[in-house]
Amino acid sequence: MNKKILIVGFGTVGRGFYELFQWKKASGRLPYKDDIEISEIVDAKFGHLRDFSQNQIENLKAGEGLQSSEVVEIIRQSDVDIVCEFTWVDIKNNAEPAFTHMMEALRNGKHVITTNKGPIALRYQELMDFANTRKLRVKFKGTVMAGTPSYNLLGLLPGIKVNKIRGILNGTTNYILTEIENGKSFEESLNLAQAKGYAEADPTMDVDGFDSALKTIIISNVLGWFGKEHTLSEMEIEGIRNLRATPDGSVTKLIVEADESHASVKPTIVKKTDILAKIGGVLNALELETDTLGTIVSIGPGAGKIQTAQAVLTDLGEILA
Amino acid sequence: MNKKILIVGFGTVGRGFYELFQWKKASGRLPYKDDIEISEIVDAKFGHLRDFSQNQIENLKAGEGLQSSEVVEIIRQSDVDIVCEFTWVDIKNNAEPAFTHMMEALRNGKHVITTNKGPIALRYQELMDFANTRKLRVKFKGTVMAGTPSYNLLGLLPGIKVNKIRGILNGTTNYILTEIENGKSFEESLNLAQAKGYAEADPTMDVDGFDSALKTIIISNVLGWFGKEHTLSEMEIEGIRNLRATPDGSVTKLIVEADESHASVKPTIVKKTDILAKIGGVLNALELETDTLGTIVSIGPGAGKIQTAQAVLTDLGEILA
Repeated sequence: MNKKILIVGFGTVGRGFYELFQWKKASGRLPYKDDIEISEIVDAKFGHLRDFSQNQIENLKAGEGLQSSEVVEIIRQSDVDIVCEFTWVDIKNNAEPAFTHMMEALRNGKHVITTNKGPIALRYQELMDFANTRKLRVKFKGTVMAGTPSYNLLGLLPGIKVNKIRGILNGTTNYILTEIENGKSFEESLNLAQAKGYAEADPTMDVDGFDSALKTIIISNVLGWFGKEHTLSEMEIEGIRNLRATPDGSVTKLIVEADESHASVKPTIVKKTDILAKIGGVLNALELETDTLGTIVSIGPGAGKIQTAQAVLTDLGEILA
Repeated sequence: MNKKILIVGFGTVGRGFYELFQWKKASGRLPYKDDIEISEIVDAKFGHLRDFSQNQIENLKAGEGLQSSEVVEIIRQSDVDIVCEFTWVDIKNNAEPAFTHMMEALRNGKHVITTNKGPIALRYQELMDFANTRKLRVKFKGTVMAGTPSYNLLGLLPGIKVNKIRGILNGTTNYILTEIENGKSFEESLNLAQAKGYAEADPTMDVDGFDSALKTIIISNVLGWFGKEHTLSEMEIEGIRNLRATPDGSVTKLIVEADESHASVKPTIVKKTDILAKIGGVLNALELETDTLGTIVSIGPGAGKIQTAQAVLTDLGEILA
């Protein structure tokens, strides 16, 4: 069958997905059973694109812009099968406007893929209940470790029970901590991370642990630990400001830990024999403590344009299966 | 629908699978859409069991034994949907008798799951062609890293291209090398591995690199590199006999490497910053170098009774999907 995609939000993630999709499609490497195409793009800055050419996409210029209500109206009227929500989210604003975009897509019979942590961490049950009653899917692999296998490892492990998770889920802070280990101050390391594009001008989300916390909540949601003290306000969250290298050369990482009853993000001294001690730079790692395999670990990039786009191909695969 | 399984070979793997299956079934954790049961067991030593009780299974005693041809006849006459082939394989004997068991199952319309490396490493194309023309599946996750995600990560990564693999795929040799690093001799380390049940009385398959080589060929088969110099006779294979700790404290691992054109298994000095340097004891690790994610790594157990049984649950999931 022929399936169509609407991209909402054409910033780094949207463009990354567009480019990866066209590349893989042109090289015959999209393994889906359906024939699939990106048929529409909407972005508050660039407007609404239909029947666009590659040339148009490459030379996009900001137009008059769209109001929020106009974006929602475009989602409503679209004839696509899948809406990819890639707008920027302010977690202080109850995951809006992404949440509204996603609900509008579901209300109109469309599956949803997002890379936005806000709606999935903060309003998971609302979204899932709404989608489930309509037999629609909401997929969000890109919210945790980009395309690197993370919570979706569970799909390869039928019957397994995860008793605990532990990991490094934020590349920005891990990069900063790696530089601090190499002798730099927090400020120098943060500046370097900003110069390299790993940290934003306002680094609060990363360095104060909120990004890691949201990802921990998302994994807890998938594991069914939701509602058991894993909300942002009930998590133990501590960032990495004011950390400095220890004289004894021990390694400090921003470690997330969660089980059914408790979740935390905090700087933790890890033993040198611990695999997490070896996770350097912007890499991420997730450990799953399970009943049948003991501890398994997945390591890989946790951010990046093409790395996040790969996660969207993964989500598409699950929707089209 | 109701689906039935025949277990062929009731040694450690067969028992492990039986126990895990019953445990997960009783606790309602088998997530398959079909209702599934183990309805028959055949073993050259224990005979042919049907309509058995839990009590019988727990108190099995060797009987008169079955001839090879009788085992094949039992497979032929069975009414099950899936045959789990768990017999012991001699790779010098062209992967028999497992290969014959698997072909007989396919010839009679049954899917096959195996944990035997022999047939999958040495006679992959024959098996797959035979299965494909009959629209049947042959699954073999347990042959590489037990239940720990390995080559099957590809199922989570649609569209990705793996350019190279690298890893530690044999826990026995990794255990021995870890002990050598700690100052023991090869002989002492091997004796310790045998005492702990990690190494067999005849340790050739492990310490001379053949087990790692077979696993490398299996991954190459899955990646479609088959036929490109990845047969056992064309691989570069070197074991770990006569290795000793280096005075400078550098770390030596039995590293497998493969890409489209070349495959090798050999003791390799790894840098201390290399994640593979941190893989201690019987752990395994597989690195995939990809086009969209760069390098991703999966780490976990590569052997063990319940760990291998978990792989069979994974294979069942793919067959019943």
